[in-house]
Amino acid sequence: MIEGHGDDLYRKYARTITANFSSNIYNGARHEGLTEHLCKALRRQAGQEGGQDLLSAYPEPEPYTLEQRLAGIHRLQGRECVCVTNGATEAIYLIAQALSGRRTSVLQPTFSEYADACRIHGHRLSSLYQLPAEREGFRFAPEVQCVWLCNPNNPTGTVVPRRQLENLIRENPDICFVIDQSYEAFTQCPVLDAAEAAAWPNVFLLHSMTKRYAIPGLRLGYVTGNGQLLQQLRRLRMPWSVNALAIEAGLYLTEHADALQADLPRCLAEARRLRQQLQSLGVMDVWESDTHFMLIRLRYGQASELKAYLANRHGLLIRDASNFEGLDKRYFRIASQTPAENDLLIKAIGQWLAEEA
Amino acid sequence: MIEGHGDDLYRKYARTITANFSSNIYNGARHEGLTEHLCKALRRQAGQEGGQDLLSAYPEPEPYTLEQRLAGIHRLQGRECVCVTNGATEAIYLIAQALSGRRTSVLQPTFSEYADACRIHGHRLSSLYQLPAEREGFRFAPEVQCVWLCNPNNPTGTVVPRRQLENLIRENPDICFVIDQSYEAFTQCPVLDAAEAAAWPNVFLLHSMTKRYAIPGLRLGYVTGNGQLLQQLRRLRMPWSVNALAIEAGLYLTEHADALQADLPRCLAEARRLRQQLQSLGVMDVWESDTHFMLIRLRYGQASELKAYLANRHGLLIRDASNFEGLDKRYFRIASQTPAENDLLIKAIGQWLAEEA
Repeated sequence: MIEGHGDDLYRKYARTITANFSSNIYNGARHEGLTEHLCKALRRQAGQEGGQDLLSAYPEPEPYTLEQRLAGIHRLQGRECVCVTNGATEAIYLIAQALSGRRTSVLQPTFSEYADACRIHGHRLSSLYQLPAEREGFRFAPEVQCVWLCNPNNPTGTVVPRRQLENLIRENPDICFVIDQSYEAFTQCPVLDAAEAAAWPNVFLLHSMTKRYAIPGLRLGYVTGNGQLLQQLRRLRMPWSVNALAIEAGLYLTEHADALQADLPRCLAEARRLRQQLQSLGVMDVWESDTHFMLIRLRYGQASELKAYLANRHGLLIRDASNFEGLDKRYFRIASQTPAENDLLIKAIGQWLAEEA
Repeated sequence: MIEGHGDDLYRKYARTITANFSSNIYNGARHEGLTEHLCKALRRQAGQEGGQDLLSAYPEPEPYTLEQRLAGIHRLQGRECVCVTNGATEAIYLIAQALSGRRTSVLQPTFSEYADACRIHGHRLSSLYQLPAEREGFRFAPEVQCVWLCNPNNPTGTVVPRRQLENLIRENPDICFVIDQSYEAFTQCPVLDAAEAAAWPNVFLLHSMTKRYAIPGLRLGYVTGNGQLLQQLRRLRMPWSVNALAIEAGLYLTEHADALQADLPRCLAEARRLRQQLQSLGVMDVWESDTHFMLIRLRYGQASELKAYLANRHGLLIRDASNFEGLDKRYFRIASQTPAENDLLIKAIGQWLAEEA
């Protein structure tokens, strides 16, 4: 799906957007260090005669150095257990291609690219629905060969407990699991460990540097897993898919990871406050979320109307979530921002309610 | 193919590489303006509250703005006639996917990614060989549905005359032509015009900003063609495949295109001089080339030995071309560099001959 994702800031709204709740990107990231590093790298190289240059030399055809680095960080056996991609999105499309034609089940509602990529690659798709009341277990149709799930899940923010997921994988050795942990840095619930997951022959584990370090502009994701399993992706991937600036950024970010971690307790406490305030308006139901973003169902009216009102009247952007499979026109998603921005949103929604009444 | 392309500077050699003849990237490009622009864009945005940011906001899911700009430059009907991709390589893989399963002929020897991408997408492949004596015409097997050719061709540097190509397309309306004009800015021979080619329903025309502006680190290519034909690519492509810095660079480069054009007459004259000097050594045959790079066949010895000698003893990198389909261990490819660098190469090869004798 090209259109219809969040962060559609590139569109024109009647007002300038001053706060963006529509993407799940963490708002507290400080990019000054990375920015300065990239500028220095660009400048240093541009003046050199010959030698490696960020602009005028090809990047590594596969990002060898960054893959090696990430293997070390995750205590994986070697580079063969890591595949760095042009955003996690490239990983999704490569995995769908590697598994083309399978009978595949996607745990819905979730990020639409899984089903889109599977459709393009001829999977026979079915959906499992994970709604709050049914978080306790999964039952797959016996013919399913491949299961995709997002953990923490987008758009609900819920996390399948680690133990439950481990049992599921162990009990279904014939099913290939694609588990997207793009939001792993934004939850305190335990999720799968990359090294342990790589011991299984049937788990592709997706990670997103885009999400962890709030750099969606650069596009940087990776898959970890069993070396033999990942060989299926290496066989398909094109050379140079990750550009030199993204690789340079990835190397910098992994070196400075500690300094760049989100202040998670504070971030989640603020999200909880926002959730409670919105719930207390009495006109919408807010999903229990294990992370900083949340799915909300309006009891009256439509998400698209609220979105247009907030953007055009208040310069606030939310994600109309009605196009997620299994959801309808009442749903929207927001990611918690700064306390001041969250207050603006609460106030603006209150105003909408007053005007609608 | 991941390994085995040129520009393998990322490998370790006994000496630091001081001149790189191994990639076809134009060596005269001045990147100072682009570098400063990118740094300014990175810095300006990083300090802003909210609003579009090169790092922390998603790029346009399809590069709308740059596609619109390129449509204008090529006098195409609209954005639907341009598909900007993560390097021309993404375009190659998307086209191969759109045409999956076809009976396909590739004009060899050429860039290996065409056949690789077609193989991955289940094409039934055959090869046509274009050697100097046979430049006058092409005869396709009657069952061929799709033909790939590179013009100017990599690695030979030859150009199929525009008239001949136009006749070929006109006479074979049932064949889909994929014509890679990545090196179009580096020849004085006429090649296809994007607007004219878009009038045909059966021509994908590939362009490379990577090549034109010598920015392979950034990955930026595009396809032009009939809007309906390109719809086949849009249906398949993933969102956000071109990152925000590449888009920003593309917008800058198209605005400053005139100032950034290669000094073509000078570049080609120097390539001619290099060709003649190498030919006059009397131990190798240099292909007639219509551009700044050239394919060379050693009369004695192997390209891999020469490559190792030049890299480890002289810090000069050439492209062992033995892995191009239809070529053998005697072939290497070089792109002409500055007169001083070319002289170094000529001298070093002379020394190799003396030591081998």
